[in-house]
Amino acid sequence: MNTVRLEKILDKLEKQNLSQMIISDPAAIFYLTGRYIDPGERLYALYISRSGRNRIFINNLFTVPEDLGVEKVRFSDTDDSMALLCDTVEKGVPLGVDKTFPARFLIPVINNSGASDFRVSSICVDEVRACKDEEERDFMRAVSAINDKAMARFRGLIKEGVTEEELASQMLAVYKELWADGFSFEPLVGFGANCAMGHHGPDETVLKPGDTVLFDVGCKKDNYCADMTRTFFYKKVLSDKHREIYETVRQANAAAEAILKPGVPLCEVDRAARSVIEKAGYGPNFTHRLGHFIGLEVHEYGDVSSANEETAKPGNIFSIEPGIYVEGEIGVRIEDLVLITEDGCEILNSYSKDLDIVE
Amino acid sequence: MNTVRLEKILDKLEKQNLSQMIISDPAAIFYLTGRYIDPGERLYALYISRSGRNRIFINNLFTVPEDLGVEKVRFSDTDDSMALLCDTVEKGVPLGVDKTFPARFLIPVINNSGASDFRVSSICVDEVRACKDEEERDFMRAVSAINDKAMARFRGLIKEGVTEEELASQMLAVYKELWADGFSFEPLVGFGANCAMGHHGPDETVLKPGDTVLFDVGCKKDNYCADMTRTFFYKKVLSDKHREIYETVRQANAAAEAILKPGVPLCEVDRAARSVIEKAGYGPNFTHRLGHFIGLEVHEYGDVSSANEETAKPGNIFSIEPGIYVEGEIGVRIEDLVLITEDGCEILNSYSKDLDIVE
Repeated sequence: MNTVRLEKILDKLEKQNLSQMIISDPAAIFYLTGRYIDPGERLYALYISRSGRNRIFINNLFTVPEDLGVEKVRFSDTDDSMALLCDTVEKGVPLGVDKTFPARFLIPVINNSGASDFRVSSICVDEVRACKDEEERDFMRAVSAINDKAMARFRGLIKEGVTEEELASQMLAVYKELWADGFSFEPLVGFGANCAMGHHGPDETVLKPGDTVLFDVGCKKDNYCADMTRTFFYKKVLSDKHREIYETVRQANAAAEAILKPGVPLCEVDRAARSVIEKAGYGPNFTHRLGHFIGLEVHEYGDVSSANEETAKPGNIFSIEPGIYVEGEIGVRIEDLVLITEDGCEILNSYSKDLDIVE
Repeated sequence: MNTVRLEKILDKLEKQNLSQMIISDPAAIFYLTGRYIDPGERLYALYISRSGRNRIFINNLFTVPEDLGVEKVRFSDTDDSMALLCDTVEKGVPLGVDKTFPARFLIPVINNSGASDFRVSSICVDEVRACKDEEERDFMRAVSAINDKAMARFRGLIKEGVTEEELASQMLAVYKELWADGFSFEPLVGFGANCAMGHHGPDETVLKPGDTVLFDVGCKKDNYCADMTRTFFYKKVLSDKHREIYETVRQANAAAEAILKPGVPLCEVDRAARSVIEKAGYGPNFTHRLGHFIGLEVHEYGDVSSANEETAKPGNIFSIEPGIYVEGEIGVRIEDLVLITEDGCEILNSYSKDLDIVE
């Protein structure tokens, strides 16, 4: 058990007048124990308490190291695992649970644990996870470096007559050759007008000269997730307008990254990019928030949007991904992951953002 | 809305003294409405009621057909969607919810809906889904036929020096060429001793003569899932023992399939296969249940195991997948999907189960 991380979570719980919580999200349990289990439908839960009586509930089907740094409660399918969990809960005081804790466990806990009140307290875990420690920063640097190398290889796959799907189907092998463990999400590959569609999945569209080629791609390594977007042009840029769109997105990306440091409100980071795009007359064509937090999961708690008045904090890692989408014509997006450091920021992706015409 | 399916679910609820339920599982909502949405963290729920006041709650971000056959309640991220849902619930009577309904929705519903009691009632949906109607049977026949064709293609990829991962990485393209929509699950590819490891993921292991080659694979088409396993030998069968193991598994598969018809207890189906393996002296090497139900999801409610005394019913579709696993040496599994018909059964996979030595 990572006691530094645990203490931070218990402190957050205390501020919400909670002394105990059941954590069931496998990513959150990994964050604390270093052990990943996909329990399927079975109970898998980490009970944490200010009293120090922490326990992890794991079905016998799953193998775990002898020493997890926390008391293990093992059970089989025929045992009443919910009774074991309910017995552990402290009676007469409120209990926090994960936002994803499912009804099949929550209803028995509500009926039988004896806690006085039940509250979703995921935020206490999420806020701690949003500030990556040194170990996590290194994992995020490493996986982003793989993603940079992969992007160069993906660019090399662009050729006459290729379809989006043919490109996408080669990506996993590239990642594996670069020692990634797999995708962090299914790659988005778009040509031309398809780039203007939100989350367009690769299809049979054939590449043609003048198309943009958008790669929104990421891999996983040691459980941490990369995420990056680059947009290339194939053979030529069809018009000054297309060139202007590309350069505007690039400037928007740069404008946001230029102001990153601890204390900057995240809505201002969004504003920095958005105002570049608005000034160029494409405000309505930037249809989404600027970015999302990332780490053990591709989308973690926290975002970079006009509505988020929270400030950037050391250890935050999020995407900066402005885009301009002109329906039926073109889409351009440029995305980096960035790390807020103690005194500024570090851009985790170094792959070039210069306008690049692939011959 | 599929009113025939809805009525069956409402009847099941009534037997549990429930007149209303919130369904949130996207597969279950698809089953009733024909519309699939992945809502991420957002509320997506179908309220059904004996009173006929059915409503579906869908965020404005998701596009849906004008006519879903059920009243739509649309909302945006800034609306209090939980209040809309709670207002709809009938007060003073119990409410059923899905087993997966997450705490972030369930706790507000418990605190604010005014229902008298809260129960997990997924079983009422699951039992109806376990009996496929004619439309679903056709989808399952079609996707299984694709899987048969794909198996022949996968066999053709077996060659000197290939790794498990190289084989697995070619499978998606094969499925797409055969007009499948994608994988129903990540393919399991194992060589030799790796076949003896439960759910071994494809790795860098290189094929060598005498290895078994196990493909546990499935595709998706029109939202329905295929699942099949075949085990080949590469170049030669190393010993009479290996041949005996293969033939035993084959006989176990045949013995189970031979007794399938409505009314047969599922535990007896498991027994039919297991006793063949036990008689051959490999009882301890068949380490799992005989099969699982399947449809819109690869693993659905219902299984074929020694513990399940339920009887087979017309429309049930499940796997028959006996296996013998000798640690460090060999693993063989042969799996078909089967459909219980009104008077017997239909084996949905026709790919040969004869011992096949690939040259």
